[in-house]
Amino acid sequence: MSDKAYALFEEQQQQRGIDLEQVKTKLKALSIETPSWGYGDSGTRFKVFQKTGVPRDPFEKLEDAAQVHAVTGLCPSVAIHIPWDKVDHYGKFRSHAENLGLRIGAVNPNLFQDEDYMLGSVTNVDPAIRRKATNHLLECVDIAKETGSTDLSLWFADGTNYPGQGDIRKRKNWMLEALGEMYKALTPDMRMLIEYKAFEPAFYHTDIADWGMAYHYATKLGPQAQVLVDTGHHLPGANVEHIVAFLMDEKRLGGFHFNSYKYADDDLIVGSANPYELFLIFYQILNAAQDVDADIRHTVDKIAYMIDQSHNIEPKIPAMIRSVLNVQTQYAKALLINHAEVEAAANRQDVLGAEDAVRQAFEFDVAPLLKAIREEQGLPADPMKAYLASDYGKQILQRGKGGASW
Amino acid sequence: MSDKAYALFEEQQQQRGIDLEQVKTKLKALSIETPSWGYGDSGTRFKVFQKTGVPRDPFEKLEDAAQVHAVTGLCPSVAIHIPWDKVDHYGKFRSHAENLGLRIGAVNPNLFQDEDYMLGSVTNVDPAIRRKATNHLLECVDIAKETGSTDLSLWFADGTNYPGQGDIRKRKNWMLEALGEMYKALTPDMRMLIEYKAFEPAFYHTDIADWGMAYHYATKLGPQAQVLVDTGHHLPGANVEHIVAFLMDEKRLGGFHFNSYKYADDDLIVGSANPYELFLIFYQILNAAQDVDADIRHTVDKIAYMIDQSHNIEPKIPAMIRSVLNVQTQYAKALLINHAEVEAAANRQDVLGAEDAVRQAFEFDVAPLLKAIREEQGLPADPMKAYLASDYGKQILQRGKGGASW
Amino acid sequence: MSDKAYALFEEQQQQRGIDLEQVKTKLKALSIETPSWGYGDSGTRFKVFQKTGVPRDPFEKLEDAAQVHAVTGLCPSVAIHIPWDKVDHYGKFRSHAENLGLRIGAVNPNLFQDEDYMLGSVTNVDPAIRRKATNHLLECVDIAKETGSTDLSLWFADGTNYPGQGDIRKRKNWMLEALGEMYKALTPDMRMLIEYKAFEPAFYHTDIADWGMAYHYATKLGPQAQVLVDTGHHLPGANVEHIVAFLMDEKRLGGFHFNSYKYADDDLIVGSANPYELFLIFYQILNAAQDVDADIRHTVDKIAYMIDQSHNIEPKIPAMIRSVLNVQTQYAKALLINHAEVEAAANRQDVLGAEDAVRQAFEFDVAPLLKAIREEQGLPADPMKAYLASDYGKQILQRGKGGASW
Amino acid sequence: MSDKAYALFEEQQQQRGIDLEQVKTKLKALSIETPSWGYGDSGTRFKVFQKTGVPRDPFEKLEDAAQVHAVTGLCPSVAIHIPWDKVDHYGKFRSHAENLGLRIGAVNPNLFQDEDYMLGSVTNVDPAIRRKATNHLLECVDIAKETGSTDLSLWFADGTNYPGQGDIRKRKNWMLEALGEMYKALTPDMRMLIEYKAFEPAFYHTDIADWGMAYHYATKLGPQAQVLVDTGHHLPGANVEHIVAFLMDEKRLGGFHFNSYKYADDDLIVGSANPYELFLIFYQILNAAQDVDADIRHTVDKIAYMIDQSHNIEPKIPAMIRSVLNVQTQYAKALLINHAEVEAAANRQDVLGAEDAVRQAFEFDVAPLLKAIREEQGLPADPMKAYLASDYGKQILQRGKGGASW
Repeated sequence: MSDKAYALFEEQQQQRGIDLEQVKTKLKALSIETPSWGYGDSGTRFKVFQKTGVPRDPFEKLEDAAQVHAVTGLCPSVAIHIPWDKVDHYGKFRSHAENLGLRIGAVNPNLFQDEDYMLGSVTNVDPAIRRKATNHLLECVDIAKETGSTDLSLWFADGTNYPGQGDIRKRKNWMLEALGEMYKALTPDMRMLIEYKAFEPAFYHTDIADWGMAYHYATKLGPQAQVLVDTGHHLPGANVEHIVAFLMDEKRLGGFHFNSYKYADDDLIVGSANPYELFLIFYQILNAAQDVDADIRHTVDKIAYMIDQSHNIEPKIPAMIRSVLNVQTQYAKALLINHAEVEAAANRQDVLGAEDAVRQAFEFDVAPLLKAIREEQGLPADPMKAYLASDYGKQILQRGKGGASW
Repeated sequence: MSDKAYALFEEQQQQRGIDLEQVKTKLKALSIETPSWGYGDSGTRFKVFQKTGVPRDPFEKLEDAAQVHAVTGLCPSVAIHIPWDKVDHYGKFRSHAENLGLRIGAVNPNLFQDEDYMLGSVTNVDPAIRRKATNHLLECVDIAKETGSTDLSLWFADGTNYPGQGDIRKRKNWMLEALGEMYKALTPDMRMLIEYKAFEPAFYHTDIADWGMAYHYATKLGPQAQVLVDTGHHLPGANVEHIVAFLMDEKRLGGFHFNSYKYADDDLIVGSANPYELFLIFYQILNAAQDVDADIRHTVDKIAYMIDQSHNIEPKIPAMIRSVLNVQTQYAKALLINHAEVEAAANRQDVLGAEDAVRQAFEFDVAPLLKAIREEQGLPADPMKAYLASDYGKQILQRGKGGASW
Repeated sequence: MSDKAYALFEEQQQQRGIDLEQVKTKLKALSIETPSWGYGDSGTRFKVFQKTGVPRDPFEKLEDAAQVHAVTGLCPSVAIHIPWDKVDHYGKFRSHAENLGLRIGAVNPNLFQDEDYMLGSVTNVDPAIRRKATNHLLECVDIAKETGSTDLSLWFADGTNYPGQGDIRKRKNWMLEALGEMYKALTPDMRMLIEYKAFEPAFYHTDIADWGMAYHYATKLGPQAQVLVDTGHHLPGANVEHIVAFLMDEKRLGGFHFNSYKYADDDLIVGSANPYELFLIFYQILNAAQDVDADIRHTVDKIAYMIDQSHNIEPKIPAMIRSVLNVQTQYAKALLINHAEVEAAANRQDVLGAEDAVRQAFEFDVAPLLKAIREEQGLPADPMKAYLASDYGKQILQRGKGGASW
Repeated sequence: MSDKAYALFEEQQQQRGIDLEQVKTKLKALSIETPSWGYGDSGTRFKVFQKTGVPRDPFEKLEDAAQVHAVTGLCPSVAIHIPWDKVDHYGKFRSHAENLGLRIGAVNPNLFQDEDYMLGSVTNVDPAIRRKATNHLLECVDIAKETGSTDLSLWFADGTNYPGQGDIRKRKNWMLEALGEMYKALTPDMRMLIEYKAFEPAFYHTDIADWGMAYHYATKLGPQAQVLVDTGHHLPGANVEHIVAFLMDEKRLGGFHFNSYKYADDDLIVGSANPYELFLIFYQILNAAQDVDADIRHTVDKIAYMIDQSHNIEPKIPAMIRSVLNVQTQYAKALLINHAEVEAAANRQDVLGAEDAVRQAFEFDVAPLLKAIREEQGLPADPMKAYLASDYGKQILQRGKGGASW
């Protein structure tokens, strides 16, 4: 049935004028980074439920990540968080990754779990704490050098809970100071990806609260600084794909932290709450990928797609497999958009026609397409089934409970 | 200056036709329950910062609560959470409270920190877990009997993160089953206060998601079941005072969990984000307090005012003092509303006049009034100053770090 | 290709254990009511753009509605709004509908465009205005009798913009009074569908602000009163399908006003902002449709599906066709859910499996299925194409500009 | 009593170290622009209720505005909207204003009520429409020259309702083109104030959706371009004072459109929904007013405070008086903040102390202060009372109904 399904799919797309070979090439080139912490325990403020079999150290996290890559072919790199993933020898850590067929991806400095940072890290009123925090940023640049990483991914929990608690403008300038010092330490091949978040854990003001602030810092710093869009870090109703389009046009979109939300920063599996939104993000990206401006096309090529979720109740590895497959699915659908058709409808001011031309692509079942490319790549047709059929899930149970957690 | 200030205030209010003696009587009758857990460490999912000096056991929590009552005169009762406040002898616990001039307030069953409850407690698909959870509810009724409490305060974290994860309607009926069994165990003087929450820790659906669901269960159960309004448990924009008015009119408003929010369930100090909203809640309550229907007046009299906040970065006891004073301040302002004037303006369809009549009361500085009643009650004029001037804060430092936390 | 596509689809669904005949039967039974005003001009507060060719009177609105039904087979009834659709002879109006193959659907009293209603209609502080408004409700019951309608659809714009402007609890009781008087006038086959709305045009409090309030009134009134869910009338983040499930379980879900929103009550084409939400609503409905309780199944059977949108920039008739097709598409997808599979996964606490079982159905392309039933029903395979190919759109241009508008 | 009240207030503030003379000087310097359209009829999409006595032409609007200034002393300028305020001779119009003791304030081009602009004005896909829209911008620069205005206030309704309807990035570049052309036409003393709005009337994407986009255009254009913050144009939960602080620090805050909201862009009387937010905005402004950087202080001095509300149910002139008094009240309170005290508490990491130092100022009743400055300025002590006691409200009734409306 699968062959028939693909044959039919091919026929349909050819009639629509879609170049399936190009679609396949792009699909095979998709890579999605998974975060090391996503293999450990996580939870809400109410409870971290401990799972049997979560990794006990950063090396085991890589091993789990390798399983996800093995069945999906989509996840060749792993983001690390410092100090969670602090190891004695980063060279050894990097080799471990390479032996598993992986590379170390973005390096994320954590500046929210030290008692000193309760009222801010790089924006703390105390210069000694700011120094300590900035040193941690610099340390992470060094770790990136050692691990062969080129992306420094920066999320700051810094903010205040009450008016008056901190001077908003002073903190703004301290932020720029710290970022500036880090920027100077970057090697020319490195990027600084600046993340923003509307709220949580700060509940009155967050120093980098929205894309506009992150973008501001990026433009002040220089071309190696870009914005990182976490799909869950917005206020209700925000049009994320609009922000994405805007940033691409300014060549300042550096990457994504993918996850889903219905309410606030729910950190659920990407594509599970509103799959259409994810599709529309890719629609904007693929639109920019065709731009006449080579710099914009280059920006698109360099987008770092990363998972950043909190699987509080799901088994860790299957949840990660599910997540990357969800991204692949919506990307595949977006690749079926006939941009010329959309543009023609928009040009003749045909609102319904333009919307329909976008939506049509979303309505296709891309399962036959995804099976076809997996076959061509020597991957299992159903990655989840393949993982569940493997012994890996059972083997790791011997790790017991109480492994890594945030 | 203080005397002059009060004399002027008195003159102003008399000219407005406000009966200050009645205002004072009502102010003196105000009582606000503090939660035992509020004296221990708490935090966000990112970090619980540990404070030196937090209580090491439920008995020490009562001691801290007694300090808040000593300086404010407002907090004669303390809410407890089971199992956090589980003790060997509840009689001894109750005596400890009484020796401190306190009584045990609402008993709160916790059903969210046991591994069994990861996918639900009373709405879990597994009947054995539902049984266990319901037994815990019944245990809390017994504890209430032993501690002399009459309010059972019920918040359920139960819900799902994804469509399909649970059958919404089955869970609805299991909820009613558990509540029904608990209801039957109540003695005639007891109340069951049913809380609702839009989301968190469940991010797709929460079994009791809004006041309408809580109200539904209360009406199904009987007159001893009422709704508990947590001011932070609503979707953005919700008109909380409208809900309060509605519930009072149906004699189903049982109490409040006070706190503040700007974004989601931020759990900040009550009255700090939007003090006017707190004032408007009291406006509705005082409007109902004058109803011709004695049952509505009785409902108002029985409202349980409770603090329910998470002081993640503030010192615990001062944060609690500040919180109850904020409530007292807005209550005092609301007592200055001239309801007849509001009503007259509304009756003549004078929109601006009616709004102004409400707002005027908010604009008064009630500091002289509060000082006056404190003096009459033999309380310190400035409770915060009095507490900070005492040695208590220093004495408890010997408790060290790592005390009680959620 | 279409035949091959359906054959493949059939094979796929059979393998999943889906009874396609039953699916088709249910699809053919679907009917979606369109609103007469949806064929006229509408807009935002900033501007109503006038379209050439909109109907000049209620009779022409029916003619346009008949076109939508002719090509989709989905829209046999038309909701009317009084006084917008006031005509001299309702018998004649009804006959006009019947001659067009239509029937008059829900009757909607409008109580928001008369100068008297500026500060409220049935909740106005002035008894004469309340009387006038209630009389209008009664008039609409009479019109329903004359037009053969059985549903009275009630949305009240009543509310306030400022605290104090109106007494919330008095207004609550006036609302019940008016509804009660109308309820008594209903014939036994009639239903009263009570709609709620969070805000707009009232911006402080709306008398019936949420489902809980509408449900409260329905339970007070009796079994002929039910709740009408407008998908756009919620606060940000509301889980509409949860509300739907709750109301069905209490046999109080009367119907829907369909539309889409990203921000507030945007009133866009249903299914255009988040198609998955619409699918999830149908998932809950189809889950209830299998309930052992015959009353719940009966409630499901009687749900009134109605469009209620504001096509400000789209051509009217095509926008309506698109809307009903969107509903049909998501309903068709929901019919492909294998409920036993979802339940089995939920029962074994397999969160990912349960979610996947629901989602799978959404991923199918139902175009072949919809084409198949249209063929069986003698309808055009592509209703939009069929309409656009007809001359109707051109003919109505002679109506000119400045037709009916709200 | 008033004298005693002021004497007491003076004593209180002196004890707190507040320089009351400076406070008074700043209060007397406050000016708030009112919008000409605010004196005409306005409404929601459901209904514009017509008031008897609204102005019949732009000249009468100025006369009403003069009344507001006469009793408050706060409103020497009036914003105009083109084409609503199009007149044959702008010189005559300007003289009329001057004879009334007023000047023409910001000039606002309207680009949302022409049929051509249905799918966009300066971002329309049709170059002819873009040209027409840009010409209108240039026309408004000319009108500003004729009326002696220096501020061009720009709000664009441009956006889309559906994905695909318009190319987001092309529209972004067309926006810059139009703004750039207008920018070049400015005389050196002119400013371009760029407004943003999250949504409405566009419901999928708005071309200038947030402060970040407006700020981006301003930085691209040059120093004469600044951002205009409309307090109601944000997504739920946005921290407006944070945005304000950020923009001031970059010398890009140009002005405000004041109004209040609880839900979306409710456009209610400023300070009526959450007076504390308005106070906190002024807190940030007054903090920046003390900056060592003269350019930041200059930015603060040049902030254009403007009312932009929709008095749908209130009488027009009293609603405007109320609005400007609300702004004055919160500004007065913010002037009582002891910034050194806030800073000292923040520096010693005293969260509660810092918050309290800000809040204290809000708790004062500033009525005695405002009466005192009014007396010193020869203004009525109670502006609203003075207006209502005048005959003006009665005189304008002869204008009848059906005056100017949007």
